[in-house]
Amino acid sequence: MQMKLLQDRIRKDGKVEKGNILKVDSFLNHQIDAELLDEIGKEFHRQFADRGVSKILTIEASGIAIAIAAARYFRCPVVFAKKTKTLNIAGDVYTSKVDSFTHKTTNDIIVSKRFLNAGDRVLILDDFLANGKAIFGLSDLIRQAGAELVGAGVVIEKGFQEGGKKIREMGVDLRSLAIVDSMDPETGVVFRDEE
Amino acid sequence: MQMKLLQDRIRKDGKVEKGNILKVDSFLNHQIDAELLDEIGKEFHRQFADRGVSKILTIEASGIAIAIAAARYFRCPVVFAKKTKTLNIAGDVYTSKVDSFTHKTTNDIIVSKRFLNAGDRVLILDDFLANGKAIFGLSDLIRQAGAELVGAGVVIEKGFQEGGKKIREMGVDLRSLAIVDSMDPETGVVFRDEE
Repeated sequence: MQMKLLQDRIRKDGKVEKGNILKVDSFLNHQIDAELLDEIGKEFHRQFADRGVSKILTIEASGIAIAIAAARYFRCPVVFAKKTKTLNIAGDVYTSKVDSFTHKTTNDIIVSKRFLNAGDRVLILDDFLANGKAIFGLSDLIRQAGAELVGAGVVIEKGFQEGGKKIREMGVDLRSLAIVDSMDPETGVVFRDEE
Repeated sequence: MQMKLLQDRIRKDGKVEKGNILKVDSFLNHQIDAELLDEIGKEFHRQFADRGVSKILTIEASGIAIAIAAARYFRCPVVFAKKTKTLNIAGDVYTSKVDSFTHKTTNDIIVSKRFLNAGDRVLILDDFLANGKAIFGLSDLIRQAGAELVGAGVVIEKGFQEGGKKIREMGVDLRSLAIVDSMDPETGVVFRDEE
């Protein structure tokens, strides 16, 4: 279910730029509004409270804020995957690859094997979903660990890109607090209608 | 003032490795204990509550968790400086340089000029203090913005490195929740005695 408070904030303070870029850096991923963030954490908890979440997994950097805000309500640890160009060779990490839409680069992401275990019920949280590569990479780490992916939540989904569709088709219970179906520098953002 | 709950946790779950490395990745900077983090945020608020903090400034990635936890109590926005190798040429950012002790690299750090302003009363928060380069870089951004640095808080200070001393000599009110005066892979961590 989408979150009206967030949609209103995106309409008010988000900036649409050419190339399908939605800048929310005044309240979500450079400067962060702590009160809005707390509401976001509370909303993710409301939507996933019944999943027996034992761990929240996200990816540095801006995902960390979202995960921390939610973890207060879930009362469970956060693990954040690290991006690295120099693959840790110690063999004590799970690794996957993530292409960044924003930065046009590919990163290896790693999580220490100590922090994802069989038996963990893992909720993935992140700020943005576009092509879905971050969530694919994180769910790959969860699979390697033999843990269970119990859901995924993102703050803003770019509904006109294919990531959300693909992830839902994989059977993942994906919840997006705002789904942008189209956007334009002149006319702004159109959110997906909900049933 | 140091924080006993944190010291106990470092003694219990921190790992001292050769080369003066203190690994706290099971509860602070890879996996994060949400309840401990909340107590850390509360403690920073207790120590800096009277400063009229209008903004918390930190640096990605692991500083974000600390800043978010504290911002709930301060009820102010967080701004995190971004590390970058490719300097933004648009001229709309403040930039400084930070050498990383852990990674043996130098990063440019940037903050959008929109998010630091003259009139802001800025509290710097970070997870680790060793040589102090991160805090020097962040305070340089604050100076460029004409904002006021009202204090700095770190979770763990390596008291045997020179950063803390230099920062206090600059006149910055620096508070560290745990000050490690020495550590050894065999015998563990010794915290600074406090008056």
